Amino acid sequence: MKKYYSVIFGAMIGLSAMSIHAKTYILTDTENGVEVGNWKTTGQNYTIEQKVLHGGKQEGSKVITITSPTGLTIALSPTRGMGLLHAEGKGVRLGWNSPVKEVVNPAYINLESRNGLGWLEGFNEMIVRCGYEWTGHPTTIDGQIYSLHGKAQNTPASYVAVEVDDKPPFAIHVKGLIKESTFKKADLQTMTQLTYVPGDSSFKLHDVLTNHADYAHDYQIIYHSNFSQPILEEGAKFIAPVSEVSPFNDYAKKGLKDWQSYLGPTKDFDEMVFNLKPLADQNGNTIAALLNKDSSKGVAIEFNTQQLPVLTLWKNTDTLKQGYVTGIEPGTSYAYPVNIEREQKRVKQLAPGQSVNFDLTYSLLSDRSQIEKVEKKVSQIQGNQLIKQVETPIAKE
Amino acid sequence: MKKYYSVIFGAMIGLSAMSIHAKTYILTDTENGVEVGNWKTTGQNYTIEQKVLHGGKQEGSKVITITSPTGLTIALSPTRGMGLLHAEGKGVRLGWNSPVKEVVNPAYINLESRNGLGWLEGFNEMIVRCGYEWTGHPTTIDGQIYSLHGKAQNTPASYVAVEVDDKPPFAIHVKGLIKESTFKKADLQTMTQLTYVPGDSSFKLHDVLTNHADYAHDYQIIYHSNFSQPILEEGAKFIAPVSEVSPFNDYAKKGLKDWQSYLGPTKDFDEMVFNLKPLADQNGNTIAALLNKDSSKGVAIEFNTQQLPVLTLWKNTDTLKQGYVTGIEPGTSYAYPVNIEREQKRVKQLAPGQSVNFDLTYSLLSDRSQIEKVEKKVSQIQGNQLIKQVETPIAKE
Amino acid sequence: MKKYYSVIFGAMIGLSAMSIHAKTYILTDTENGVEVGNWKTTGQNYTIEQKVLHGGKQEGSKVITITSPTGLTIALSPTRGMGLLHAEGKGVRLGWNSPVKEVVNPAYINLESRNGLGWLEGFNEMIVRCGYEWTGHPTTIDGQIYSLHGKAQNTPASYVAVEVDDKPPFAIHVKGLIKESTFKKADLQTMTQLTYVPGDSSFKLHDVLTNHADYAHDYQIIYHSNFSQPILEEGAKFIAPVSEVSPFNDYAKKGLKDWQSYLGPTKDFDEMVFNLKPLADQNGNTIAALLNKDSSKGVAIEFNTQQLPVLTLWKNTDTLKQGYVTGIEPGTSYAYPVNIEREQKRVKQLAPGQSVNFDLTYSLLSDRSQIEKVEKKVSQIQGNQLIKQVETPIAKE
Repeated sequence: MKKYYSVIFGAMIGLSAMSIHAKTYILTDTENGVEVGNWKTTGQNYTIEQKVLHGGKQEGSKVITITSPTGLTIALSPTRGMGLLHAEGKGVRLGWNSPVKEVVNPAYINLESRNGLGWLEGFNEMIVRCGYEWTGHPTTIDGQIYSLHGKAQNTPASYVAVEVDDKPPFAIHVKGLIKESTFKKADLQTMTQLTYVPGDSSFKLHDVLTNHADYAHDYQIIYHSNFSQPILEEGAKFIAPVSEVSPFNDYAKKGLKDWQSYLGPTKDFDEMVFNLKPLADQNGNTIAALLNKDSSKGVAIEFNTQQLPVLTLWKNTDTLKQGYVTGIEPGTSYAYPVNIEREQKRVKQLAPGQSVNFDLTYSLLSDRSQIEKVEKKVSQIQGNQLIKQVETPIAKE
Repeated sequence: MKKYYSVIFGAMIGLSAMSIHAKTYILTDTENGVEVGNWKTTGQNYTIEQKVLHGGKQEGSKVITITSPTGLTIALSPTRGMGLLHAEGKGVRLGWNSPVKEVVNPAYINLESRNGLGWLEGFNEMIVRCGYEWTGHPTTIDGQIYSLHGKAQNTPASYVAVEVDDKPPFAIHVKGLIKESTFKKADLQTMTQLTYVPGDSSFKLHDVLTNHADYAHDYQIIYHSNFSQPILEEGAKFIAPVSEVSPFNDYAKKGLKDWQSYLGPTKDFDEMVFNLKPLADQNGNTIAALLNKDSSKGVAIEFNTQQLPVLTLWKNTDTLKQGYVTGIEPGTSYAYPVNIEREQKRVKQLAPGQSVNFDLTYSLLSDRSQIEKVEKKVSQIQGNQLIKQVETPIAKE
Repeated sequence: MKKYYSVIFGAMIGLSAMSIHAKTYILTDTENGVEVGNWKTTGQNYTIEQKVLHGGKQEGSKVITITSPTGLTIALSPTRGMGLLHAEGKGVRLGWNSPVKEVVNPAYINLESRNGLGWLEGFNEMIVRCGYEWTGHPTTIDGQIYSLHGKAQNTPASYVAVEVDDKPPFAIHVKGLIKESTFKKADLQTMTQLTYVPGDSSFKLHDVLTNHADYAHDYQIIYHSNFSQPILEEGAKFIAPVSEVSPFNDYAKKGLKDWQSYLGPTKDFDEMVFNLKPLADQNGNTIAALLNKDSSKGVAIEFNTQQLPVLTLWKNTDTLKQGYVTGIEPGTSYAYPVNIEREQKRVKQLAPGQSVNFDLTYSLLSDRSQIEKVEKKVSQIQGNQLIKQVETPIAKE
């Protein structure tokens, strides 16, 4: 579906202390009947563009791309739950190559197909919010399929706005509201926000999940953050301050001793998953990073363990066509099905009206000095604490 | 999806004795390749407008709104099975507030999700046709999920036309064809019709369900008619001539003695459902109404028990955000799953080519005299007959 | 959804030895952001037109129609997996009348509904590609529903191009790419091609299925080719050189002795299916045909048993409204569920990167001489070999 709306809402409006003055472009607003299709704005060091895609299963999918010639190019899709498709800069691409090439419109996805694995028919993003009503591997409880990684990623945004601050550093904010609202079941609404300062090599996510219902509601979230070449390669390393690592399942046991290093593309590798207990500084801040073999390139994720207490490492170093990719996944939960996560007390709850924030910073690392800084942070937080290697999976699916 | 068709089909055509002369605007006609997007027409005491919605899960959903300044404003959605969203007039709103705010395009609904409760992801209407292939609570028979309340409401209309009579009282008719046509399974087609005379405070539904197949086919229908504030409130009353009331399930037993009065918004109330056997006059005509506490406002539904022999009362007086709402639901069936309804002989059948009509009149009551008339009708039909209170549910899900 | 793209890509480009010079119109290209909506081109003896349909469940479906005044009119739908809707010429219509009248957009189809029979909610085509990830009757294995006849037909094409050769015989080629690409599951891509020479009464399919994955993958395909009146009638005949016929199930046993002749529309007939083992010439080429009673009209399908080794005959001579139709279905598999086909070794496999071709020629036969040629081919291939009638179905669902 192509949109021909040409009215752009730009105004100097007071919003908050954070962005007293900003130009705001509302691209989607279901409540007020606003919808913008193909759209573009250009500033001194950036362009921001929305395109509506067509053909195949991407018919009608929208993609917003921020391009900063001296910094990053970042693409995200309002139609796919504000998921981030990829980012690029300094000759390094963040993201991966899935056999799924299109930005699949959720209208063409049946999450419950393949016994709850329908999500895989659209999965090709760099960052997927796996949640919030549930997450993890699929399971069927009382006849209901809890499909893989929940529904947020396959929910088109109900409100999308681009804000550009008019004071240095002229940050760009892309907001998108994902509503998981079902009569009698849930009213979890997440106002996602991507913030990017043109020229920078990092970007931030600030997501606010609010329980709009009059009843407490469980929530789970995994920030499924996926990277491949040129950072991922044989000899690439994962670093993070952690107190414990354990294999997700029996298959991962054999990879336990090498859990921090990567193979090149490896036929029949499939995936090995490790559950990590991240350490953090006194404020809960921590960092995890993927570095290439010679530590010349990398990507770091800063997050807070008070918001996201656990960390999953997904090593999918299969062949290039099958998907050579690793996931660094801060979350409230590991990837076990919701019933196991609940038993093991990792499912959180929001009181009526309560909100919870998730803040993550993703940084593209393109030289040794940046990488040394990250390594230093990791070792500072790790301190003298040894990493306990637990041999036995903490749960069985 | 936005439509740019601008050709409106208006003509003086002979249709039937009922509307010898009428202006006809065909908004959708899949057979003849007619599709109108945003559209508006204005008459002496009305405007009729179709808008295509965008964003979120309402992408592409169409809404037709009839506005009569001295009467009612009525909104319905061709994309959602010609369901009526809400009506408003004399300072009274008919309808309710669901946590689902968007007019969800069925392309984004999986009716079979949540073990057959996917319907709840789109449910926010004042009047939903629950049918016709099946209705009621979900069940799985021989591996097939009979999802909650059937498919008609999540079927976009194949033909939509607005007719305006050119003779007094210049009635407006909105027709919409809902096809439940599946190779080897069913060819049930329902030509729905909403009739509204500008200035009036009531509107009529006249639906004709036809079995276009060469085989007899079962059908079920519940007119799920839902109301909330300002009529629904603590002390509001339900009145209708009935011979019997029974609780739908064990939970409703405790509400049996107060079945005709309502609580205010009540945390943890969830829903109580009562099965009613309506009484009718000699022609089968009857009436049911919801009145506010001081009997100054209300809504009445007239229907015919030869067409719709049973009546379900759905009391969902939970909190405002959860959905404070009551459903007055004339039907061929109660809300039990289709297998129970079949066992208890409430599933009807249509012979090949046979049609059946459903006629309902909804009236907004905004003063004491109107309400007294309704109360009088109810007591005239009730006469001396006592209402039998059956303590035990007639079926167990 | 209506498209307003008006840029048509026409160019003289070198493609292959087969079509050194051709005009190419790219109508859809997801990779390069090309999408054409309503579109038309006209040549000396043809017009080719694409229309975007609207309303009901066909909202956004595209149909390409080739019209050759002295030959055939052929309609196919990129939105429905390049399926061929119908063809027409010499006063004969190829195709059938399903109770499903719309060209249903797969966004409105849930293949898993009705216990895996959701496909029936869109089925009305003359030629459906049933595959390729799986085909056959539905079954549930380890919780996964293998829905009826696979997903290709309900997958919108990712690339669609019309090519017109600029040398005699000025053949028209309609190409469409159907991607069955799911992370971790499959990357089967089929470049379908319809070739039609204006004025002719036959058309060709040339489909190339490629396994783009790094792992071997099973595939199955049935070319579900469906015909009705005026060819199908009481006394119509099916002819093909075969070595063996067996009933698909117990119900078909009673039709075994009359397996080559047809009834008129017959209430309660439902469907009888026969499994055939086709004979072929030394190159694997064979032919099957449906002829009307007096052998004045017919339709023939030429195919190759090295590509498509088995043949299913689907006799659905039920009433006209229910669907009076027969399917002549060359395939790699019979219509049993995938687990039975696998047990019986009819599921094929493609190595990584491997391709397989499927070539079929469909001919409308409108006079005795054409029919005699077909009859002669059939009897030449059959030779002296008797047709073995196996009484017992080779498998039980």
